[in-house]
Amino acid sequence: MPEDSMDKPSIVTCTAPVNIAVIKYWGKRDEDLILPINSSMSVTLHQDQLKTTTTVAISRSFQEDRLWLNGKEEDITHQRLQSCLREIRRLARKRRNDGDARATDSVGLSHKVHICSVNNFPTAAGLASSAAGFACLVYTLAQAFGVEGELSGIARQGSGSACRSMYGGFVQWIMGSKEDGKDSVAQQVEPESHWPELRILVLVASSERKPIGSTSGMQTSVQTSLLLQHRADAIVPRRMVDMIEAVRKKDFPAFAELTMKDSNQFHATCLDTHPPIFYLNSVSQQIIHLVHRYNKYCGETRVAYSFDAGPNAVIFTLQQFVPEFVQLVQHFFPPDRNGEDFIRGLPVKCAALPMELKQNIGLEPVPKGINYIISTKAGPGPRVVDDPSEHLLSAEGLPKKTV
Amino acid sequence: MPEDSMDKPSIVTCTAPVNIAVIKYWGKRDEDLILPINSSMSVTLHQDQLKTTTTVAISRSFQEDRLWLNGKEEDITHQRLQSCLREIRRLARKRRNDGDARATDSVGLSHKVHICSVNNFPTAAGLASSAAGFACLVYTLAQAFGVEGELSGIARQGSGSACRSMYGGFVQWIMGSKEDGKDSVAQQVEPESHWPELRILVLVASSERKPIGSTSGMQTSVQTSLLLQHRADAIVPRRMVDMIEAVRKKDFPAFAELTMKDSNQFHATCLDTHPPIFYLNSVSQQIIHLVHRYNKYCGETRVAYSFDAGPNAVIFTLQQFVPEFVQLVQHFFPPDRNGEDFIRGLPVKCAALPMELKQNIGLEPVPKGINYIISTKAGPGPRVVDDPSEHLLSAEGLPKKTV
Repeated sequence: MPEDSMDKPSIVTCTAPVNIAVIKYWGKRDEDLILPINSSMSVTLHQDQLKTTTTVAISRSFQEDRLWLNGKEEDITHQRLQSCLREIRRLARKRRNDGDARATDSVGLSHKVHICSVNNFPTAAGLASSAAGFACLVYTLAQAFGVEGELSGIARQGSGSACRSMYGGFVQWIMGSKEDGKDSVAQQVEPESHWPELRILVLVASSERKPIGSTSGMQTSVQTSLLLQHRADAIVPRRMVDMIEAVRKKDFPAFAELTMKDSNQFHATCLDTHPPIFYLNSVSQQIIHLVHRYNKYCGETRVAYSFDAGPNAVIFTLQQFVPEFVQLVQHFFPPDRNGEDFIRGLPVKCAALPMELKQNIGLEPVPKGINYIISTKAGPGPRVVDDPSEHLLSAEGLPKKTV
Repeated sequence: MPEDSMDKPSIVTCTAPVNIAVIKYWGKRDEDLILPINSSMSVTLHQDQLKTTTTVAISRSFQEDRLWLNGKEEDITHQRLQSCLREIRRLARKRRNDGDARATDSVGLSHKVHICSVNNFPTAAGLASSAAGFACLVYTLAQAFGVEGELSGIARQGSGSACRSMYGGFVQWIMGSKEDGKDSVAQQVEPESHWPELRILVLVASSERKPIGSTSGMQTSVQTSLLLQHRADAIVPRRMVDMIEAVRKKDFPAFAELTMKDSNQFHATCLDTHPPIFYLNSVSQQIIHLVHRYNKYCGETRVAYSFDAGPNAVIFTLQQFVPEFVQLVQHFFPPDRNGEDFIRGLPVKCAALPMELKQNIGLEPVPKGINYIISTKAGPGPRVVDDPSEHLLSAEGLPKKTV
């Protein structure tokens, strides 16, 4: 390899999506390898609305591994980040030793990396960014080191739910049974094109105080909740089967009911934790009431909610029901700023709200309870960005700008 | 029997206590007989602070059974009330047929009854009054009809938890296994004198909207919560054993931890119900945080909370910790009216609140989150009131006054 190409960093940029679990992951059976106590399932959100972009540069001239997150240099010795880096380098070495052409052509394995990553959504939105972040890191590192094949097991070691962000559409994380975790990987159930009518609305809550983190939260739950183990052993296996069937058949009512039940059961195990963990606040409770009363009014299940370990509500519905439901949300959570910028992402048509419907819901409006809505749908998995102008690192391997 | 004594109503007045479950009752296996899916345990509160008073008059001259509750005439055909009346009359008949002297001397079994009942606490306080109410009804009817013996099985048919209000102190409701419910009765575990240091504070919440009633709530839970059955089958039996042991040993930390865990697990099964049921609001969550942080600060478990199917918090603690904890509650829930009348019931000494403690708790005060505190302790079971001036019905069997 000529000297000059060895000095110029090799640069690659990729993007990866956020995912929302519809059968929840809560609790690890192995903290180091990040092996879950139950399988889970999620919908990958479209990257047009929510994504992480990561650029990796590799160069013999770099003195050390470095990391920039959302414009700020961060400590790269973070244990889980090191796990991902180590695993990718190990795979790259294995491929070279196995005589893989691409790997041997590739950059030196001993070279240091510069990593730069940004989200296209504000951190303050309280969206779990670690899944998209670690999926993007692993996917981009793999590209940079010329590693191919099943990578979700590596993303899992960065952040459990990151393994599901390695695929688009409808994805299951099979818990596996091996001690080394080799069979604890994600699998696509159906691609994003399977259910084009499905729509997703992220109701971004006005963030109050920071709730307890999911890592320590689920640790306490595993240690103290007697209901959690029963859920993992006796309830989730059946739900996984039912959920996969509902998705395959595009049976929205079945999908919706199961999604709501599983969200509530996850929060029930949080409450059964000692001391108890609360992620649902009064706004969340109001959204839950709103959805159930709307479905009841309609005489069919048109809308479902799901809440993760944070304040935002994720709404699943079908395209045809979006306008009326969004109008309903705006009515019961009157926005600040005359509703300007309240709906972001995929355009939402206007709809009239029947007086009878408003009265039938019978809730007190909560002004400013919801900050804004991100309107989106199921989307594809991680992608390579071909346009070099999109790189977050300069030709010298340093951040182009502070984001 | 001389004519004149037959025309004058025979009048008896009794009082009965409220009880607070520390192992919760939630879910019936038989709706008509009110048979629970698990055993439960409670502490009977002292009647000096919280009681129901009931007067029963029986006379051949009454045209029909009548009922006055808190000064207002109510429909006596209420199914559960009729169950209690029918059962007491059946027992009285049985005693007469068995040739019991007192029963035959007693009033005619075919005579109609007038029932008048009042609580010494406002209904608006949101305290579950049905347990005290049905316990008092059954106890008073039994006195009036000359019935003795085990009556908790009859009270149970009025309102499940009423069976526990038939005894003072620490009471278990054994779920039983018979189909006819004959073995589903309450039993005293320890009398009220057993643990004199134990103190109970009812934090009366500022009542918002009326939450879903416990009868329909537990019905939906039994039908839809997969966690509830597991709790009943696999968790409560062990907890009953542990709770009885904690009470017998007066082991406050064990009693307190179990009380909190069981309260939270009950609310977890409510959340696992479909649609979910919420009884804990933001004030409840704040109280829960306050208790855990206070215990943590103290380095020992000094205080426990328990929440029923309503907004009030019930605090268990030991006498020596009452002043500081009450001060803490006043600090984090600054009362209206300069704290006047904020503490009711047993007197509470003043205490200084160390600055370090206040800072360590680290919660935002919630003004007016708590309406007032009722300070009380464990108390005796139902009692006969000897003083005829205390009767709620006049010598003619009509309410003396509108309460």
